[in-house]
Amino acid sequence: MVDISMIMGSESDRSIANRAVAVLEKSKYTYEVMVISAHRNPDELDSYISDSDAKVFITIAGLSAALPGVVASRTKKPVIGVPVSAKLGGLDALLSIAQMPPGVPVGSVGIDNGANGAYLALRILDLIENP
Amino acid sequence: MVDISMIMGSESDRSIANRAVAVLEKSKYTYEVMVISAHRNPDELDSYISDSDAKVFITIAGLSAALPGVVASRTKKPVIGVPVSAKLGGLDALLSIAQMPPGVPVGSVGIDNGANGAYLALRILDLIENP
Amino acid sequence: MVDISMIMGSESDRSIANRAVAVLEKSKYTYEVMVISAHRNPDELDSYISDSDAKVFITIAGLSAALPGVVASRTKKPVIGVPVSAKLGGLDALLSIAQMPPGVPVGSVGIDNGANGAYLALRILDLIENP
Amino acid sequence: MVDISMIMGSESDRSIANRAVAVLEKSKYTYEVMVISAHRNPDELDSYISDSDAKVFITIAGLSAALPGVVASRTKKPVIGVPVSAKLGGLDALLSIAQMPPGVPVGSVGIDNGANGAYLALRILDLIENP
Amino acid sequence: MVDISMIMGSESDRSIANRAVAVLEKSKYTYEVMVISAHRNPDELDSYISDSDAKVFITIAGLSAALPGVVASRTKKPVIGVPVSAKLGGLDALLSIAQMPPGVPVGSVGIDNGANGAYLALRILDLIENP
Amino acid sequence: MVDISMIMGSESDRSIANRAVAVLEKSKYTYEVMVISAHRNPDELDSYISDSDAKVFITIAGLSAALPGVVASRTKKPVIGVPVSAKLGGLDALLSIAQMPPGVPVGSVGIDNGANGAYLALRILDLIENP
Amino acid sequence: MVDISMIMGSESDRSIANRAVAVLEKSKYTYEVMVISAHRNPDELDSYISDSDAKVFITIAGLSAALPGVVASRTKKPVIGVPVSAKLGGLDALLSIAQMPPGVPVGSVGIDNGANGAYLALRILDLIENP
Amino acid sequence: MVDISMIMGSESDRSIANRAVAVLEKSKYTYEVMVISAHRNPDELDSYISDSDAKVFITIAGLSAALPGVVASRTKKPVIGVPVSAKLGGLDALLSIAQMPPGVPVGSVGIDNGANGAYLALRILDLIENP
Repeated sequence: MVDISMIMGSESDRSIANRAVAVLEKSKYTYEVMVISAHRNPDELDSYISDSDAKVFITIAGLSAALPGVVASRTKKPVIGVPVSAKLGGLDALLSIAQMPPGVPVGSVGIDNGANGAYLALRILDLIENP
Repeated sequence: MVDISMIMGSESDRSIANRAVAVLEKSKYTYEVMVISAHRNPDELDSYISDSDAKVFITIAGLSAALPGVVASRTKKPVIGVPVSAKLGGLDALLSIAQMPPGVPVGSVGIDNGANGAYLALRILDLIENP
Repeated sequence: MVDISMIMGSESDRSIANRAVAVLEKSKYTYEVMVISAHRNPDELDSYISDSDAKVFITIAGLSAALPGVVASRTKKPVIGVPVSAKLGGLDALLSIAQMPPGVPVGSVGIDNGANGAYLALRILDLIENP
Repeated sequence: MVDISMIMGSESDRSIANRAVAVLEKSKYTYEVMVISAHRNPDELDSYISDSDAKVFITIAGLSAALPGVVASRTKKPVIGVPVSAKLGGLDALLSIAQMPPGVPVGSVGIDNGANGAYLALRILDLIENP
Repeated sequence: MVDISMIMGSESDRSIANRAVAVLEKSKYTYEVMVISAHRNPDELDSYISDSDAKVFITIAGLSAALPGVVASRTKKPVIGVPVSAKLGGLDALLSIAQMPPGVPVGSVGIDNGANGAYLALRILDLIENP
Repeated sequence: MVDISMIMGSESDRSIANRAVAVLEKSKYTYEVMVISAHRNPDELDSYISDSDAKVFITIAGLSAALPGVVASRTKKPVIGVPVSAKLGGLDALLSIAQMPPGVPVGSVGIDNGANGAYLALRILDLIENP
Repeated sequence: MVDISMIMGSESDRSIANRAVAVLEKSKYTYEVMVISAHRNPDELDSYISDSDAKVFITIAGLSAALPGVVASRTKKPVIGVPVSAKLGGLDALLSIAQMPPGVPVGSVGIDNGANGAYLALRILDLIENP
Repeated sequence: MVDISMIMGSESDRSIANRAVAVLEKSKYTYEVMVISAHRNPDELDSYISDSDAKVFITIAGLSAALPGVVASRTKKPVIGVPVSAKLGGLDALLSIAQMPPGVPVGSVGIDNGANGAYLALRILDLIENP
């Protein structure tokens, strides 16, 4: 059982994920870090999400960055997206993550800003403890 | 049984889909047109794709436009994406559709260019008949 | 006492705020809607935030869109930003809202997507009830 | 006789072409790799296309990237375009390749994504074998 | 025999071409106006260019706007490009026209600025008379 | 007492601030350089501005770059903004700084152009001496 | 003798200039409004600037928007630029105005934001009175 | 007396100018290379242009890139602009050079493409010899 599930779309997003890990390490909350591509491992992703008891999801992806949206469509928990700058300075990933259709929300933090992905998750978890 | 499956992510993409329909109507190939959101109806989309015997998929979506990529991750058939200009002139959708990770290819035609989505599908189907 | 505080930077953002209101109206949570500019009424904004007992903030702003970030710097509660398309299709507001420095997170939803601002807030509030 | 014709617009596109070659090498299909500029060698390009019996064309180009469109105007076979990031992160090439006029379709994959150019070609060729 | 050949890629570019015509009408030079798509009528375009005795070419095109570059690759005369705003405010056409590879130059004027296409042509023609 | 107050949002903006310092050093005016984040130290920033007797403010910030606008909302003195290229080539910061709402003006100079921030401040100060 | 000189590059910028006028009308300062193109009337512009005793220049221009920079190169007074959205949402004008070389500073306000052009000028003039 | 005048806005544009020089060196035409900033040395630029008997001007500039437009406003000869990528990948310079107002035309070649600046000049000069 974990408080936070962090999923990156590719091993190449690791350095950005580590910025989130560095923040979470200083918190009292538990987390796990997964590498699952929404495009290459869709069934694995579905299974993982439906089995997860995480309260908040931090999703990290570059390029067309479908991961955050797919997670948001498979869970009712809050989903945070971290766009990674693989091409075009990360503008592609930012747009893919933020521009979700109504009803399937993702909260996007800044490009490559894994730290803010973690900080936003911590604000949500703190709220549970002190609503 | 159909040659082409055309899927749009939202009823609001209908006018672009109709441009593709107008082209397909003049061909000898069969097609069906579906409205299934990758984000709002992921299970329905999975079922539809796995049950479909379409040879080519034309996918039409705006904003973060995950539909084409999700279809490409669920089928081994060629997938064509048509970005729709809902915001930012359609740049968001174009980037979301084209910038797929290696291994899950989508061929993007131009913004709002439903006709070219159909023409590209026809080229592929003609190739099957005359390889 | 309210669950959600929704703040727009200008009366001209009202139509986008109304999209969020339409979603919140169907929920069981309470909310209030304020018009306070981060730039033109900074003291009023500071007072409002420090007096507020809202659990989640939905902030709506266009152009340089400082409001979400300023709110995030004045509260420890989760802050959601909704960029409004006043100029450049809203790209200016999206970048201003998402690109926050580490430590002051804002979760940005899509351009003009007030509905998703509300849906993300509801996911957070639901989490408090069923952690 | 080859299954796939891969054409790059300039020797400087070689590293991107090699990503496609690496994928094709693992397939059972035959291919050939050409360097012909649509702008500097238009007659050579015309001759090559009209003489070719390739079933699918993978075209790789940067900057104004006319090559994919010119090939598509000279053949009735499916044409895949791979935009190369020479300037502006490849946005110029992506737009030049995707934004074709109705009737002359090119399917664009992602910027510098030679692998997906190949994977999309393989999906089309597999379809011929198992329609 | 004409001094200036003006070619637009599509009948939909007519209003921009008319801005050039309005300028040329006030000059002493002769011109003709053609509608030939580089993508849909490549052979017609090749024939027209090789038969033309025009001194300067004004080419007008939107979207991927290959016309100016193709003309420049088929003639040794100066080629002026006028990008048309069909999508993305004309940024796609501007980039397609300006970003030519070394050796095949096109001089691009501003988006939808048919007048400047004509004015630049007139400067060149005036130079012939008074070198 | 100083003529110019230069504030950067983060220690990482130091190299751009130094370009302004190099210009100011050659002038007869006095200045001080501060590092205060509008987002992380809002109260410190408020206090500093209200206590300051500087005639002109030069503000330097990257990313969502709220600093210039916040300063402009807290003082009636002229505020100059210098956008820093941390992501997206600095386009995010430029838009955040320039696109202020009516009534709270910031004059933005170019991306990373600390020198022009200083030169514009000097023009204003010279004007005081020789109105 | 005037306190503020407002120059627009074209009669088509009038509506944006009027937003500045509306602000200046409520102030105690004098101003005059001119229409002089930096490109079409360079000599007139040079004469006007060298003859002017204005303390601050507000310059308003669209497209390539050279006017603010040219004024800044001809005077030592502070120059404010207002980018006008004629094409590309005004991004072209914003970049042309802000991205000046070191030594010739222009302070750019937001796109179409004539009001802020005036407000920034008033801050500078107020400073002269109460340094 | 020279056939071509090449002017760069700053010594930092030298490497791009050298690409043009390399092309011109292989031609039979004469040229001279100047460094004159439109913004920092406007009077010197005016004098140079009015004294010049060059038939064609190649102008090379980055950032807000006013040089090509200023030259075009001071001469009736054809003016070619070469945008230099100093910031934002050169998009700022491309827009500043191409987006001229009607009546003052500049023909822009591609970003950093000094070679095409030269090739376009040669086409114009060849036309004078063989109209």
